[in-house]
Amino acid sequence: VVARIDTQRELRHGFPEVILAEGKRDDHLQAILTRALPHDRDLLVTRVAPERAAALLELFPQLHHNATARCLYRETPSDIEPIGLVAVLCAGTSDAAVAEEAALTARMLGARVQTHYDAGVAGLHRLLAAHELLQTAHVFVVAAGMEGALPSVVGGLVDKPVIAVPTSVGYGASFGGLSALLGMLNSCSANVTVQNIDNGFGAGYVAGLINRLAASTPPAVD
Amino acid sequence: VVARIDTQRELRHGFPEVILAEGKRDDHLQAILTRALPHDRDLLVTRVAPERAAALLELFPQLHHNATARCLYRETPSDIEPIGLVAVLCAGTSDAAVAEEAALTARMLGARVQTHYDAGVAGLHRLLAAHELLQTAHVFVVAAGMEGALPSVVGGLVDKPVIAVPTSVGYGASFGGLSALLGMLNSCSANVTVQNIDNGFGAGYVAGLINRLAASTPPAVD
Amino acid sequence: VVARIDTQRELRHGFPEVILAEGKRDDHLQAILTRALPHDRDLLVTRVAPERAAALLELFPQLHHNATARCLYRETPSDIEPIGLVAVLCAGTSDAAVAEEAALTARMLGARVQTHYDAGVAGLHRLLAAHELLQTAHVFVVAAGMEGALPSVVGGLVDKPVIAVPTSVGYGASFGGLSALLGMLNSCSANVTVQNIDNGFGAGYVAGLINRLAASTPPAVD
Amino acid sequence: VVARIDTQRELRHGFPEVILAEGKRDDHLQAILTRALPHDRDLLVTRVAPERAAALLELFPQLHHNATARCLYRETPSDIEPIGLVAVLCAGTSDAAVAEEAALTARMLGARVQTHYDAGVAGLHRLLAAHELLQTAHVFVVAAGMEGALPSVVGGLVDKPVIAVPTSVGYGASFGGLSALLGMLNSCSANVTVQNIDNGFGAGYVAGLINRLAASTPPAVD
Amino acid sequence: VVARIDTQRELRHGFPEVILAEGKRDDHLQAILTRALPHDRDLLVTRVAPERAAALLELFPQLHHNATARCLYRETPSDIEPIGLVAVLCAGTSDAAVAEEAALTARMLGARVQTHYDAGVAGLHRLLAAHELLQTAHVFVVAAGMEGALPSVVGGLVDKPVIAVPTSVGYGASFGGLSALLGMLNSCSANVTVQNIDNGFGAGYVAGLINRLAASTPPAVD
Amino acid sequence: VVARIDTQRELRHGFPEVILAEGKRDDHLQAILTRALPHDRDLLVTRVAPERAAALLELFPQLHHNATARCLYRETPSDIEPIGLVAVLCAGTSDAAVAEEAALTARMLGARVQTHYDAGVAGLHRLLAAHELLQTAHVFVVAAGMEGALPSVVGGLVDKPVIAVPTSVGYGASFGGLSALLGMLNSCSANVTVQNIDNGFGAGYVAGLINRLAASTPPAVD
Amino acid sequence: VVARIDTQRELRHGFPEVILAEGKRDDHLQAILTRALPHDRDLLVTRVAPERAAALLELFPQLHHNATARCLYRETPSDIEPIGLVAVLCAGTSDAAVAEEAALTARMLGARVQTHYDAGVAGLHRLLAAHELLQTAHVFVVAAGMEGALPSVVGGLVDKPVIAVPTSVGYGASFGGLSALLGMLNSCSANVTVQNIDNGFGAGYVAGLINRLAASTPPAVD
Amino acid sequence: VVARIDTQRELRHGFPEVILAEGKRDDHLQAILTRALPHDRDLLVTRVAPERAAALLELFPQLHHNATARCLYRETPSDIEPIGLVAVLCAGTSDAAVAEEAALTARMLGARVQTHYDAGVAGLHRLLAAHELLQTAHVFVVAAGMEGALPSVVGGLVDKPVIAVPTSVGYGASFGGLSALLGMLNSCSANVTVQNIDNGFGAGYVAGLINRLAASTPPAVD
Ligand SMILES: Nc1ncnc2c1ncn2[C@@H]1O[C@H](COP(=O)(O)O)[C@@H](O)[C@H]1O
Ligand SMILES: Nc1ncnc2c1ncn2[C@@H]1O[C@H](COP(=O)(O)O)[C@@H](O)[C@H]1O
Ligand SMILES: Nc1ncnc2c1ncn2[C@@H]1O[C@H](COP(=O)(O)O)[C@@H](O)[C@H]1O
Ligand SMILES: Nc1ncnc2c1ncn2[C@@H]1O[C@H](COP(=O)(O)O)[C@@H](O)[C@H]1O
Ligand SMILES: [Mg+2]
Ligand SMILES: [Mg+2]
Ligand SMILES: [Mg+2]
Ligand SMILES: [Mg+2]
Ligand SMILES: [Mg+2]
Ligand SMILES: [Mg+2]
Ligand SMILES: [Mg+2]
Ligand SMILES: [Mg+2]
Repeated sequence: VVARIDTQRELRHGFPEVILAEGKRDDHLQAILTRALPHDRDLLVTRVAPERAAALLELFPQLHHNATARCLYRETPSDIEPIGLVAVLCAGTSDAAVAEEAALTARMLGARVQTHYDAGVAGLHRLLAAHELLQTAHVFVVAAGMEGALPSVVGGLVDKPVIAVPTSVGYGASFGGLSALLGMLNSCSANVTVQNIDNGFGAGYVAGLINRLAASTPPAVD
Repeated sequence: VVARIDTQRELRHGFPEVILAEGKRDDHLQAILTRALPHDRDLLVTRVAPERAAALLELFPQLHHNATARCLYRETPSDIEPIGLVAVLCAGTSDAAVAEEAALTARMLGARVQTHYDAGVAGLHRLLAAHELLQTAHVFVVAAGMEGALPSVVGGLVDKPVIAVPTSVGYGASFGGLSALLGMLNSCSANVTVQNIDNGFGAGYVAGLINRLAASTPPAVD
Repeated sequence: VVARIDTQRELRHGFPEVILAEGKRDDHLQAILTRALPHDRDLLVTRVAPERAAALLELFPQLHHNATARCLYRETPSDIEPIGLVAVLCAGTSDAAVAEEAALTARMLGARVQTHYDAGVAGLHRLLAAHELLQTAHVFVVAAGMEGALPSVVGGLVDKPVIAVPTSVGYGASFGGLSALLGMLNSCSANVTVQNIDNGFGAGYVAGLINRLAASTPPAVD
Repeated sequence: VVARIDTQRELRHGFPEVILAEGKRDDHLQAILTRALPHDRDLLVTRVAPERAAALLELFPQLHHNATARCLYRETPSDIEPIGLVAVLCAGTSDAAVAEEAALTARMLGARVQTHYDAGVAGLHRLLAAHELLQTAHVFVVAAGMEGALPSVVGGLVDKPVIAVPTSVGYGASFGGLSALLGMLNSCSANVTVQNIDNGFGAGYVAGLINRLAASTPPAVD
Repeated sequence: VVARIDTQRELRHGFPEVILAEGKRDDHLQAILTRALPHDRDLLVTRVAPERAAALLELFPQLHHNATARCLYRETPSDIEPIGLVAVLCAGTSDAAVAEEAALTARMLGARVQTHYDAGVAGLHRLLAAHELLQTAHVFVVAAGMEGALPSVVGGLVDKPVIAVPTSVGYGASFGGLSALLGMLNSCSANVTVQNIDNGFGAGYVAGLINRLAASTPPAVD
Repeated sequence: VVARIDTQRELRHGFPEVILAEGKRDDHLQAILTRALPHDRDLLVTRVAPERAAALLELFPQLHHNATARCLYRETPSDIEPIGLVAVLCAGTSDAAVAEEAALTARMLGARVQTHYDAGVAGLHRLLAAHELLQTAHVFVVAAGMEGALPSVVGGLVDKPVIAVPTSVGYGASFGGLSALLGMLNSCSANVTVQNIDNGFGAGYVAGLINRLAASTPPAVD
Repeated sequence: VVARIDTQRELRHGFPEVILAEGKRDDHLQAILTRALPHDRDLLVTRVAPERAAALLELFPQLHHNATARCLYRETPSDIEPIGLVAVLCAGTSDAAVAEEAALTARMLGARVQTHYDAGVAGLHRLLAAHELLQTAHVFVVAAGMEGALPSVVGGLVDKPVIAVPTSVGYGASFGGLSALLGMLNSCSANVTVQNIDNGFGAGYVAGLINRLAASTPPAVD
Repeated sequence: VVARIDTQRELRHGFPEVILAEGKRDDHLQAILTRALPHDRDLLVTRVAPERAAALLELFPQLHHNATARCLYRETPSDIEPIGLVAVLCAGTSDAAVAEEAALTARMLGARVQTHYDAGVAGLHRLLAAHELLQTAHVFVVAAGMEGALPSVVGGLVDKPVIAVPTSVGYGASFGGLSALLGMLNSCSANVTVQNIDNGFGAGYVAGLINRLAASTPPAVD
């Protein structure tokens, strides 16, 4: 066996099966999809290059494609309305791919999602235009490249968790997203927590989990 | 003026005033405390070296001292019971300082907290002994130094957010916590999100926010 | 002379001649193979890109090709049965190339080899399914990318040497395998030792040497 | 000769002689001061540790001491009023040493200087309180540690040059100021330019030069 | 909305609208240009790859192309003569792209610009040939790759601000411009300040701002 | 509980209980020793600073001290003779501390150990003087700082596993052992495998495991 | 002017005009060659990619091509015999490009050159086969990738200067030649000095200078 | 044996026995000196901290002390006059320790040495004052910290080998000498070759070797 079925994860209701396409050989990826699709469960394939997505859509026409997010996915019919509110913001037009990956992932975990893009710190009015969203969301995903300052500024304006995602957008001393990553790790806003560079998926996943906790009736612990 | 009063934060109810002692001169720190203490609000001072803590306790006897966490704090009387459940785990005895800082911070944000220390991945039975805690907590703080693998393992066992905190425990190629930090950022468990090296405070703060969302009745968004 | 014959190595019985293809010009590589093949000795060519392998197979039809491992090789007829037991594990489907390179190398040093792939730490049950292998092998090769935590977990479950191989699988702050490498170097399991990033060959080689020591009758030292 | 007299610099009117104390042996430093003081020119000694400053003040009572800036200096009597306006801002109380060094240096180049400290991005109202200064200064020095986001935000609010100075304030992944440095170099505000970590002197010097250009009658080029 | 109109920047007279092409998808870039061009304002598009520039010129024939600088731009008719003097120097022929980007940017901010290229420190006579320019310019942009020593040498010869731009020219331990960047940050010439690697745009922008301050009649502050 | 008893490890016969002293508080360390000593098992405490060792010897007089190795230890009486042969080599006098730690650890795992120190590659005759040891040992531990070339040279002379340990000996671009570590990871000798910087303990542990496999009668696998 | 004539260098007799092709645009490179060729002086063009070399040879048929060294060059007729002796060694077949560049450069500075390739430290007999060369050369160029240990070993065997050149040969933690570079900088052989990664040209140049000093009659200093 | 006698080096006439004190324990160092001093040979002990030097001078009064160079040494009586000419330059007063170590080492290899200190590139006239030395020396040692630009400038003025030594002088992004090291490795002057950070000894040693080659009658090779 090259890939094992994650039977344990299967048991967890409401979580999609997730496959990271990048780094997998074509035959491996197709084998995994062939095995996974018959199962009656949501499915998300991340980091799928454009040509690869096209080829897979031919083979698996039941999949949807979000080209900006570079994702393939299948959602099983569901009577459950999206709940809560996850806000997804990003600093520049070029960060949209990562932001969309986060938004799609959070949606697949059952969240209602609102996005607000191109709101970098060099023009604060663009961020403040989203004041209503800033006041109502349960949790924030904030993607930014270059100096990665946007999560700190958002963190100072809200009293909810902020999931920061550095992107590899930039050049020179941005070092493929390292500058943004370090900036976010050193955020002076205490409510900021950080994901790997370009990991919109992880950010959307954690935001989805928090949103679920926030929007459901709290369990009786103890 | 050297330090400004954060009037905006004052307004946010149930959040302590937090002061990072490290890097501040003695006279600046005392001036800030003298100004802050009359206010009727919880207060947390982090990263206070032992001798410094002793000197400040003489000057400000109303403060408490958590020596392991290297924190001074004051809690204002409160009728509100701690709510929810935050789990704080760490890998080795040497990570206890960071874990305690997280536990104390979460408590000051109103959370009920349970800790489980010295549960590193080289002896998994030590982690599995905490299975009940793993099943009931709303959110997890997991501190680890060296290779920082514990958050990934915990993340695979629970379906809640895991706040990973790398610690500077280790030597040689641990590079002051960098190895643990990178390991956590690259976690293959999708529910893991990361704080700065040794930032127990930030981890406890985010965990406290999430716990609050989880344990309160959800607001009516929309 | 561009490449010297390693007469000393020739003398060591039971060791293959090994050639690292990557970085060598085509004419150099062909010259080396032309000179080496007449010798009555096992031969292993590592890191051969797919198209390059195809071209070489045309020229040297006596070679075998392991496409996953990216290796060409020739085994001389041998009456000796494989001995001992080397276990080769890896964390994800994408690490299979490195794991296969290790398995093939160990086999060429005379070892019996069993593999267990896709057993990453985010789903421990996948690893524990290999409990029999964990109890019987003399030595373990464990390949993992991203946070590279698997060798530590395996190391805690067995009392034999674990050869850890970081892979370049991952993105962002995985920095081409650096995160996994650092994680493995800082392993809290004392029986873990480390190879270069993607160096399945080196891991299989050392495992083969240890297996040989373990499976042969000990020499009388002193 | 161990240290050469910079006769060329002597000729430039209105520039202080500047000596970097750190890294110099005591006897070298005293010899340089003994030689420099008879000259009828402003003098600035930077990065002088507290005890060292005390010892030098005993030997050279004609020097002044700015303890926060860690500088010794002598200003020759001057009929010239400070001109123009340099704004010096910093993010946190702990950045004050670097900010003061910048302010003192700019003053010694003849600038009128106004400071506004503890105005970090996690509480934007603290920055906006300085709106008048933001509108009137010719040039800005902005010092910040940790994620170093303040210069970007200031840069977005003003249409003048912003000299950003990363400070070594922070811990963990701040890596001694590296995070702040990288953040500032990648600033999305086009009017930001950067100095070495903790180099308040350099920032104040460049700001002083720009202020001089701004506040004097423009020369007739061509 | 993917990209927001920077209405605030619009208000600032005499500043071009600037768009960073690199990292933007083709459709996004065209949408931004379509929206921006009707406005009666200068426009600068930076880091446009050659083929991309060709395609955009077909679509937007009102744009000019500076191939060396890799920029597209439109200048609105203006009665205002270029003012002041910005000097742009570079060390080697290969740094000309970055230097040209700086020169074009400064020109679009209204500056008179003179260039002096291929004046590296290994042959000082080439720099000294520009002595007249060294004496008359208000501000200097100095681009250099490899060891990046030229700004320090220029800084020692002039008493004006020097904007240093490291370039990614070099190989091996130049690490994509990192060596030049570090060299410039550690310059022993106090009048040197630094931009991101290859950021000719930022250098020209700051130089343009300083030149404007120098060449205009000083405002009456206070 | 701050530290958990590793009951699982207890069960493994012939393995010492090992405690890493560095990074533990005094009270924690004493509590661990008080709890561990009554057990009838070998005990090894590593990385104990000299003064700390003195204080602990007063409290626990049953412990031995190896000052060069910076270790405290207790060996329970044993009828079993040391078996096999582990060779421990090092490059310079300054590497002796790490080498001794490895030798002591291997001895506690039951190995016969021979050492050969100060045999760096700049004078090969010093290494070749140990030719008998090179021919008879089952496994080699080779410690070296600076450029860390010794393991490669040893690896070329023997056909047994070589455990390389980089040490932090050196200055400047040795970067605390990083140079030696990288050199060893890139060894062109295929039998070399690597430990963390200064990790003599880990090297001795793995060498002890391999020696045990080599010197015991091979088990009947399958 | 984009490129200045180095009139000063022209004056230095016996030194070739040297052009680094990499990083220059085609038109710039052709312009420089067109201007340089009429001069009656040796000419060396380094780091010329294969296709580029072919194109330039069509335009400038008077040039020679050394494909391994990736150089184009022209030698003016000369009555002077090569003098002295420069030895050029390298560790593996893949380092030959860098070694050849060094050999060609030294030859163009008038040196007699002997090469000895594929002599890595994992098989010392291959190096010792060159014992005569080791005893007679005035100066050594030693190129090696991976761990870069060869210069240290050569340095221990000779009492002449050794110019070490790290190459980018390797993978994983070789980090593009960084490992080899660091190893060489930390060489424990005192007679080793280091060039940039892959800088065979620089190594051959310095070796040529030293050889000239060694092989000429010493001038009467004083 | 902890330290081996380098009998091979003994045989090389005119080379001192050299001991690196840093990193060696006191007892080891004393033992080495006790064994080495009876031999009739020059002796050099480098990197000796001031207090340590004082203690050793008490024990071994036959040693001399160069406090600036931090060296102890003994020169055996010699009838041979120093030969040739080595120039040792440095950029700032703080680099004098490294420069002196180089000068002393070169002298012990028999060279005549002239020094020229405090000649940094920010004031070129200070370097040009040494024009006579620049024209007559056989070889140059150039030490510089911060941006490390001096060797490039010297390299452009002379046609002899330049041994560049980066020093750890600087702060912030000088990263302990890394900036200067990288600058020197990327020098655009072809005659520059590089030593480890602060390695004045290595620079003086290589310069001494080259000077010996230059100042002796050339041997008849072939
Ligand atoms: N874009 C992504 N970034 C990081 N982790 C991912 C991503 N997509 C999927 N994953 C994680 O990788 C796991 C699947 O890995 P695999 O079995 O290799 O497909 C999933 O369970 C996710 O937790
Ligand atoms: N994939 C590999 N990774 C690291 N080392 C290798 C690899 N393949 C071969 N080698 C080593 O490189 C040596 C051959 O190098 P070469 O002479 O350049 O072909 C062999 O003796 C092996 O020790
Ligand atoms: N704090 C500082 N940081 C950076 N450069 C400085 C500093 N203080 C002085 N300098 C520069 O260093 C030069 C003096 O160096 P020195 O001759 O070593 O005293 C001055 O001309 C300044 O340009
Ligand atoms: N070449 C460049 N390098 C760095 N920043 C740039 C560059 N070109 C444009 N910018 C900045 O990026 C902003 C535009 O970003 P965007 O909205 O993504 O096009 C402009 O306001 C500039 O401040
Ligand atoms: Mg935080
Ligand atoms: Mg994650
Ligand atoms: Mg280990
Ligand atoms: Mg900028
Ligand atoms: Mg500066
Ligand atoms: Mg290896
Ligand atoms: Mg050296
Ligand atoms: Mg060079």
